[in-house]
Amino acid sequence: MNTQTPFEKLTLLRQQMQQHQIDAFVALSADPHMSEYLPAHWQIRLWLTGFTGSVGTVVVTQDFAGLWVDGRYWVQAEQQLQHTGYVLQKQTQDPASSYTAWLAQQLGKSSTLLVNAENTSVAQYQGLQHIAAQQDFTLRTDLNLIADIWTARPALPQQPIWQMQDGLNALSRIEKIAKIREALAQQKATAQFISAVDDIAWILNCRGSDVEYNPVFLAHLYIDPTRSVLFVDEAKCSADLRQKLQADHIEIRPYADSAAFLAQTAGQQVLIDPAKVSILHLHALQLQNQVMQGINPSTLLKSQKAPSEIAHVRHAMTKDGVALCHFFHWLDTALARGESISELTIDEKITAFRAEQDGFIGLSFSTIAGFNANGALPHYRATADQFSQIAGNGLLLIDSGAQYHDGTTDITRVVPIGVPSEEQKRDYTLVLKCHIALAQTVFPEGLASPLLDAITRQTLWQHGLDYRHGTGHGVGFALNVHEGPQVISYYAPPAPQTQMRAGMITSNEPGLYHEGKYGIRIENLVVNQPKHFSGSTYGEFLAFETLTLCPIHQQCIAAELMNDAEKAWLNDYHQNVRTRLAPMLQGDVLDWLMRNTEPL
Amino acid sequence: MNTQTPFEKLTLLRQQMQQHQIDAFVALSADPHMSEYLPAHWQIRLWLTGFTGSVGTVVVTQDFAGLWVDGRYWVQAEQQLQHTGYVLQKQTQDPASSYTAWLAQQLGKSSTLLVNAENTSVAQYQGLQHIAAQQDFTLRTDLNLIADIWTARPALPQQPIWQMQDGLNALSRIEKIAKIREALAQQKATAQFISAVDDIAWILNCRGSDVEYNPVFLAHLYIDPTRSVLFVDEAKCSADLRQKLQADHIEIRPYADSAAFLAQTAGQQVLIDPAKVSILHLHALQLQNQVMQGINPSTLLKSQKAPSEIAHVRHAMTKDGVALCHFFHWLDTALARGESISELTIDEKITAFRAEQDGFIGLSFSTIAGFNANGALPHYRATADQFSQIAGNGLLLIDSGAQYHDGTTDITRVVPIGVPSEEQKRDYTLVLKCHIALAQTVFPEGLASPLLDAITRQTLWQHGLDYRHGTGHGVGFALNVHEGPQVISYYAPPAPQTQMRAGMITSNEPGLYHEGKYGIRIENLVVNQPKHFSGSTYGEFLAFETLTLCPIHQQCIAAELMNDAEKAWLNDYHQNVRTRLAPMLQGDVLDWLMRNTEPL
Repeated sequence: MNTQTPFEKLTLLRQQMQQHQIDAFVALSADPHMSEYLPAHWQIRLWLTGFTGSVGTVVVTQDFAGLWVDGRYWVQAEQQLQHTGYVLQKQTQDPASSYTAWLAQQLGKSSTLLVNAENTSVAQYQGLQHIAAQQDFTLRTDLNLIADIWTARPALPQQPIWQMQDGLNALSRIEKIAKIREALAQQKATAQFISAVDDIAWILNCRGSDVEYNPVFLAHLYIDPTRSVLFVDEAKCSADLRQKLQADHIEIRPYADSAAFLAQTAGQQVLIDPAKVSILHLHALQLQNQVMQGINPSTLLKSQKAPSEIAHVRHAMTKDGVALCHFFHWLDTALARGESISELTIDEKITAFRAEQDGFIGLSFSTIAGFNANGALPHYRATADQFSQIAGNGLLLIDSGAQYHDGTTDITRVVPIGVPSEEQKRDYTLVLKCHIALAQTVFPEGLASPLLDAITRQTLWQHGLDYRHGTGHGVGFALNVHEGPQVISYYAPPAPQTQMRAGMITSNEPGLYHEGKYGIRIENLVVNQPKHFSGSTYGEFLAFETLTLCPIHQQCIAAELMNDAEKAWLNDYHQNVRTRLAPMLQGDVLDWLMRNTEPL
Repeated sequence: MNTQTPFEKLTLLRQQMQQHQIDAFVALSADPHMSEYLPAHWQIRLWLTGFTGSVGTVVVTQDFAGLWVDGRYWVQAEQQLQHTGYVLQKQTQDPASSYTAWLAQQLGKSSTLLVNAENTSVAQYQGLQHIAAQQDFTLRTDLNLIADIWTARPALPQQPIWQMQDGLNALSRIEKIAKIREALAQQKATAQFISAVDDIAWILNCRGSDVEYNPVFLAHLYIDPTRSVLFVDEAKCSADLRQKLQADHIEIRPYADSAAFLAQTAGQQVLIDPAKVSILHLHALQLQNQVMQGINPSTLLKSQKAPSEIAHVRHAMTKDGVALCHFFHWLDTALARGESISELTIDEKITAFRAEQDGFIGLSFSTIAGFNANGALPHYRATADQFSQIAGNGLLLIDSGAQYHDGTTDITRVVPIGVPSEEQKRDYTLVLKCHIALAQTVFPEGLASPLLDAITRQTLWQHGLDYRHGTGHGVGFALNVHEGPQVISYYAPPAPQTQMRAGMITSNEPGLYHEGKYGIRIENLVVNQPKHFSGSTYGEFLAFETLTLCPIHQQCIAAELMNDAEKAWLNDYHQNVRTRLAPMLQGDVLDWLMRNTEPL
């Protein structure tokens, strides 16, 4: 039991800093794999400050301790940082508000900044190096102060790894590694070091449970022309799995030995993804190799799902759709009966219905069920301490998803409760029009995905409205619900790796949020399908196939705002939902589906 | 009279190369100002090869001579390069087809590549340096072989410079230079060297006639905290202008002295635009200064026209619209009378009507009048040797524009001749829908302009169609018709400088081309206007005001393909054209305007 307060930990940290002549210490929200979700072992910022948001950066000096968080978390951080010794630093789009700008301003010639080599990415480190060079301060990575003071630190997770069922993946791991070696050769690299756990899971056709929501396991992977070396805790692999991996010429070495192993490699041109590899590993590689930086070839390969894999995802979507029909039917019925329902009930029920489905692994992220004002908070999560009852009039936003053995889901629906207002109907319809605009888009193969965002938002922009999140993120195949490299967001740089390719799965989730009132988001997953035009001389085109199968609540639509093409899309979508889900449903739930897929 | 053949010149060049131990020589289509249109003095590639296209790169070794040109010019270059000794090299989007890829492959350790310091930009040079470092060859810039062998080289142009009339520019040159110094200080630069002739014309509120179509004059400008030094041929400036410039603290020095002057400057942090400054000047600056690279602050300032300047442009558009109504009325009448009209007649007539307008300076680019198949060639120009008669059925594409003292115009219309086919009507309407989609767009201030392209092209993409040019280029104020930094094109990198700001003028010119059959393009100029939404919490928005005033030919519209919003836009546009132009027209021409602005 760790009973130290953040203030006591801060005092300890400052003592250590003083002892080692460190003027400033930075703790990033990261682990050695640069994952979105961190094992407890790597929740350094949470342990130090008590702030429970998903992202934040700590900077500590002898006379300052700050936590940089973005707009999503200002209110929450303000509360959680009371009496901790930390000051909330509001991070905005303005580069001047960043912790790096603060460091550039505060640290001078004789200063020393320490970052942790294990969980600082090469890209982050290069950013800091740039500032250190400009401001002429010293940047150190050779101490691990947190390891010294965090005595009751949780161990690393130890969940078993499983191999995916035969037939789920289009390529074997031998084929995948061959493709990676081919891609490396094209870039004149000979070897690669991968820390991204979803890339490793994809390459090996294995999954695990080391991280919340993401079916991955902690590992590093080194590939050169003759060897593939997997760094993983052997205890996580059954004897059978070990045998299978070895049969596929994959050496297994202890997880903790990765850096020492890399230090022994020599004479390779090693590709690393600077956003996905720690400087601990970079420094080890640099001893006797040439290091090249670029996106992991596996990240691009992983994003392009094969037709057989998309067929599996369609099956997972049918199961998810069945669970959702049961859930929404239950919700309507329970509300009609006047049952007491809270945001927490929603989370429990939707999870329970999904858990009944074949091949259910778990949730793909923490369910967001936000009624009225709570729906306007982009990353709201009801807790036992703080939640709303679903009662009266308003809008209930439910963003949820699951991991199945044959696919990953992510869906947002907005349920009108009681009688929605005219303003709510207008806003709901505007968001639906944005959703349909993107769903109907046809675009050249290879188009940078961020360019599609303006098509989506056009309807909202016409009304002086917008939403402060991306429209679409890549989604994995029975893997992370947030997956690169494509992203539909006008904030995102349209880098070459965002080019749209057949088989990429992306979310389509425009929204609209009125602070203190209500939030709207309508989300389906879509997959890039080749669209052939006979005789076209303009290369290949892609169009979206909508994968998600669940009625879009129509009671809230202001039909007069929709044009014929939009109505036709919605009716076609509902016809498809009905055709695909009706055979799996009976009785009242089937009736619910039929009612909710009537043509508009 | 220069009567050497390209083959003889090539032989001479090779002799020089051998004598100086140069293995490869590159000649780029450029002058020391990196202008779009080159004075005859800088037409090195044309002089060497005889190829008359606007862009091409020559590479010469002892056993190879090649000319790299893009797809627009393959047919033309194939013809013009016969018996010259040069081989056509087809440049495509594929980097492997570039001359730099060729150099990387052909030049090895002991090779020496020569480029001309005077007209190679810093950015181009850095690209070559990168390859030279990779392939370990030597890159030289210290010889000027062309100057040695081009004996009958045309002199530099000597046209007079004039100061723009009072009231046309919102800011004086003193105010503009103060703004530039402010922008430099923000970037921690102290000085700037500018070679971009349109930037210099803008800063000084002067214009000239040294270059075809662009009302600019050859000059360089150096600005530091205490001095502004203009390098220009003094003979171009009247005594009065010289006095005015000196009164505004602008020193005048000989055009040829710029590099020598820069070599004497010392201790400055000098900003240069790497795409717009030659390595001759870079090398001179580097002797005693620190050089920083970035876009010229004047390029950003110049792009944002003040409301008073936009009012002048509106006036220029009225004049241009009047000339166009006269022209289109004449065309209809002459065709009806059965007069013999060719593409050349079009050019003559449209220019003549414009020349009658007050403040006409000249054309803003070479008129494109292409009938049927010729309209499908993106950069077609009818010549005395090769032109079509306007007769029978088909589509006549006319892309033209003028420079007036109070504004620059650029407009494309497609005139149906005889009876257009159903296919032509469909295609014309699809392009019109694209034009309207962009014209109606509302978007957040600061949006990267390339992101608007997908909105424009969506209608064509839905049909598997596209066009291989950008949708919009920036346009100057009584200045270059092609002006940065914004560009609406999905091929363009959405760099920070493409962010949309109020007052930027851009073309809206979607098109569609059927090789060997016909081409369609509908182009108006639009200006970014603030669009205020009361109570919006999403920052500032922009919407386009269409500036160009001329009927869009409606005989070719397939009305059933247009939705109500599109029809409303077209009718509103025509109502505005009528309101603005009718007072300036009489008799038959007024009748023509009224007929052609009837609601659809």
